[in-house]
Amino acid sequence: MHIDTLLTGGQVYNSYLKKFIPGNIAVSGDRFAYVGMDELPLTPHCTVDLAGQYVIPGLIDCHMHIESTMCAPRTFMNGAVRSGVTTLIAEPHEIANVFGLAGIRALMQSAQDGPCDVRIAIPSSVPSTNDALETAGAAIENDDVEALMHMDQVICLGEVMNCREVIADAHSKTNRLIRQIQHGRPDFSIEGHCPRFVGWELAQLLYRGIRSDHTDQSLEGLAQRAANGMFIQLQEKTLKKEFLDYLMENCLSGRFALVTDDTMPDDFMRRGQLNHLVRRSMELGLAPEEAVYAATYAPAQHMGLRDKGAIAPGRIADFVVLSDLREFAIERVWCAGRQVFARGEAWEEPERDTSFPAHFYRSVHLTPRSAEDFVLRAPIAEGTVLCRILEVQEHTTFVAEGRAELPVHGGVIDWESSPYNLACVFERHGKNGGCGMALVGGTALTRGAAATTYAHDSHNLLVLGQTAADMQAAANAVIEAQGGVAAVWDGRVQAFAPLPIAGILSDRPLPVLGEQIAHVRRVLADCGYRHDNVIMSLSTIPLPVSPYFKLTDKGIIDVKKGAAVPLIV
Amino acid sequence: MHIDTLLTGGQVYNSYLKKFIPGNIAVSGDRFAYVGMDELPLTPHCTVDLAGQYVIPGLIDCHMHIESTMCAPRTFMNGAVRSGVTTLIAEPHEIANVFGLAGIRALMQSAQDGPCDVRIAIPSSVPSTNDALETAGAAIENDDVEALMHMDQVICLGEVMNCREVIADAHSKTNRLIRQIQHGRPDFSIEGHCPRFVGWELAQLLYRGIRSDHTDQSLEGLAQRAANGMFIQLQEKTLKKEFLDYLMENCLSGRFALVTDDTMPDDFMRRGQLNHLVRRSMELGLAPEEAVYAATYAPAQHMGLRDKGAIAPGRIADFVVLSDLREFAIERVWCAGRQVFARGEAWEEPERDTSFPAHFYRSVHLTPRSAEDFVLRAPIAEGTVLCRILEVQEHTTFVAEGRAELPVHGGVIDWESSPYNLACVFERHGKNGGCGMALVGGTALTRGAAATTYAHDSHNLLVLGQTAADMQAAANAVIEAQGGVAAVWDGRVQAFAPLPIAGILSDRPLPVLGEQIAHVRRVLADCGYRHDNVIMSLSTIPLPVSPYFKLTDKGIIDVKKGAAVPLIV
Repeated sequence: MHIDTLLTGGQVYNSYLKKFIPGNIAVSGDRFAYVGMDELPLTPHCTVDLAGQYVIPGLIDCHMHIESTMCAPRTFMNGAVRSGVTTLIAEPHEIANVFGLAGIRALMQSAQDGPCDVRIAIPSSVPSTNDALETAGAAIENDDVEALMHMDQVICLGEVMNCREVIADAHSKTNRLIRQIQHGRPDFSIEGHCPRFVGWELAQLLYRGIRSDHTDQSLEGLAQRAANGMFIQLQEKTLKKEFLDYLMENCLSGRFALVTDDTMPDDFMRRGQLNHLVRRSMELGLAPEEAVYAATYAPAQHMGLRDKGAIAPGRIADFVVLSDLREFAIERVWCAGRQVFARGEAWEEPERDTSFPAHFYRSVHLTPRSAEDFVLRAPIAEGTVLCRILEVQEHTTFVAEGRAELPVHGGVIDWESSPYNLACVFERHGKNGGCGMALVGGTALTRGAAATTYAHDSHNLLVLGQTAADMQAAANAVIEAQGGVAAVWDGRVQAFAPLPIAGILSDRPLPVLGEQIAHVRRVLADCGYRHDNVIMSLSTIPLPVSPYFKLTDKGIIDVKKGAAVPLIV
Repeated sequence: MHIDTLLTGGQVYNSYLKKFIPGNIAVSGDRFAYVGMDELPLTPHCTVDLAGQYVIPGLIDCHMHIESTMCAPRTFMNGAVRSGVTTLIAEPHEIANVFGLAGIRALMQSAQDGPCDVRIAIPSSVPSTNDALETAGAAIENDDVEALMHMDQVICLGEVMNCREVIADAHSKTNRLIRQIQHGRPDFSIEGHCPRFVGWELAQLLYRGIRSDHTDQSLEGLAQRAANGMFIQLQEKTLKKEFLDYLMENCLSGRFALVTDDTMPDDFMRRGQLNHLVRRSMELGLAPEEAVYAATYAPAQHMGLRDKGAIAPGRIADFVVLSDLREFAIERVWCAGRQVFARGEAWEEPERDTSFPAHFYRSVHLTPRSAEDFVLRAPIAEGTVLCRILEVQEHTTFVAEGRAELPVHGGVIDWESSPYNLACVFERHGKNGGCGMALVGGTALTRGAAATTYAHDSHNLLVLGQTAADMQAAANAVIEAQGGVAAVWDGRVQAFAPLPIAGILSDRPLPVLGEQIAHVRRVLADCGYRHDNVIMSLSTIPLPVSPYFKLTDKGIIDVKKGAAVPLIV
């Protein structure tokens, strides 16, 4: 036995007693060896004086998607540790939709030996629907799940999203997958995504195996989830004072955690990751001891991470030193016994991430688009046609349905002179070269165009615009860069975030990407797109599991019906 | 979806809110489908009116040894469900010392499809020492552990007992075994047995991986275990008011459980099993809600039994209906969705357990003993010799060392006319036919003899007596029955509990065995043996890891030295 580092004189968070206790911390290898006030019979290799600073376990984010931040895993991890986060439970269903099991493996590989610990939730719904409704790059099948569930980094079944199917059909693909996990890995949690489900329906989801939710926004839903033993994950939009008050009044510590789910790159730069929610929860009145618990010990327990979430002998030495608790001012971060961040340190990162296999950087299988690709044909030569309109809405990613009469000239619908955008989704995985088209209204563009391969969940190429020329320019910028988000007007690319890894991830450092995305946002706003999160709005137009009408490479999807419907009514 | 049984109008324990809530319970298959007050849209196959009775989750005993009760697993399980216990975490190191991996497999096989759920803790110390100090029937090696840890029923590494070795040598057999488990089954708890370890020594045990203790008897030890994240298991002797008060004052619910460890068959008959400790803890002032928690949800969480310990949709339908909470008056017990006990039901059990393989009933490989076997030879022809005496003590299983001068006639020590018993341990596994001999004093027999193959941990044949004739009679009764505990005086077997399965388990129903053991106890007391638990005292005389001087087939063992020492000093 030896002591590598002795940190003396800290206010050390005790997860079992849920309080800070003055003491020293000894680290040996990747674990804590001792916590307390005794004189140890060994001389440490190195000593650090904590001078009364707070020490808490490394933060654990138990529900998040790295791809939401559009950066490479190593880049994300560098940002995470600066935020005090040492463990991420990442659900990689975005990259799985592009490259399947190989995508997950590549992400895991890229995350290895990084500054923090990345564990993987098995994506349970890849593709989000089926071949009739969209063309994904790949699927996760039972064999893939079998391979994944025995890998060391894999920790749970990721959010099950198709709750209606889970309730309706005990023999559905998802229910078979749940049983496969229950049988093969009874130690795994089966994560949920079940907004608005309550009562007997909620009970049925629990009966089928679902054990958590990070989506419901009602107090009654929270109360029912708590009483029925569903683990609650509070993300930013559900981090409400009344929720926290309810959880404290009912002594529900340990039954909920703070999670980030999706973090935009510019938000990540500006305010960090899970640390932001810990700080926010304290602002909402949660005691610091409870806020820390909900971001460390509680998620560790829920995820079966026996040796995490606590500063105690034998536990993995992940910890954060804070000079101010309520401000959550991070001085140092340690992961598995080594210091991975110290305040004032420069942001060191390679200019380009090259950690993925070569073909991941060449995944957009499309030739340059021509003007012809944005011609919307009608079944008549002249006159008008009644068209279905996808109505984008400012404060939600739900897309409503509208109708409008459009003129036809020479067999072509004249959408450019209408108030509506044309939207095209080009299949880009080299599978069938298909294309779906729709007209988009509501709060979408009033001029210019946007194009992106970051387009849930299949990540085909979405192009949206007010003129064919701008759309062509936007599409070709993205195709040439093998992925990205482009904003165009006047025929010129005004803002561009290249996403060359699988067409969904940047290879640049977070500060660069953050600025690129912020710029795209600004240009799209200038082009009239009104939305709380314009990137999210754009990228969910093709998501055929999100209400109500969406566009995939197979055409317009009526989500409730689960079927394609024609543009001309 | 269907509902098999709807139980209406109960006071249902909610493990998440830690309180009783009026409600109905729907069971579908082996799981709860619904708990609450809503009208369900399904007609149940069967309805039960609970009439306001209490319903709690089935009790979970997370540290116990079936063999301590000397009955076959099915017999134990029948007794367990009558006590409200539906899950047992059994550590089968007794049968493993006789038959190794095959013994554990046979025990698991015998426990299958019984009325409750038996999970297995992998014995970590079989044999308790090594070939130089005792001859066991079998050993558990790394290959056996590898096979065991991937079996469905196996749930943790059982109590690690050789703490000194664990601290002293990182490369010891036990530390290698711990790392084997940490690597292969990071979801497993590694159970401890570490009385009196505190401070830096306790930290080192935690550092090596030990995560629970059920032995320490001091309040300071309890406080240190709690603060360092060691899960606390309170057995009868540590179930003290001051301990419970400390745990409650420090909000340590969930960090401790009630366990039985060893239950004697007659105690089992008289007062039950874990239910006795739940009742006792309430008598000591623990709130019923906390007592239930410590015997259900807390042990389930500690053991990673995600779907146990709570009455909630999706959890295994193990539950107990109580007509009186504080009296713990059990009306019905359900396990995995079926009723396994109802008050007033007759104790139905086969007359003989025949569930083990045939050779388990023929495991005492010894021919009948002759008078010659009990002759204690001296290195001199006539005179006296100074002998080491094993001093049995009334209130502990520790055996002290004494000295006495004994006469020698014709090269033979005349022990029969001394105040000391002769003790012989005959190797009975058919390995080497060895025999160790010692003289025993203190509070042992004043007349007659006892013999038993229930003799920790190697379960060789121990014979102890005041005359050679009585010893011979006792030994031969046990040999003829292929195992048991016999009490003899006047050359006649006065009381006998046959233990024909592996020489350590009865094949009879619990009421029969309970009465046999009680009778043996009475006769041994009549023969002058004074001890709080005479069966335990007798059976630990050969245990070479228990202080201070013990007798194995290899001779007298100085436990502290870890070496055999001569009878004649």
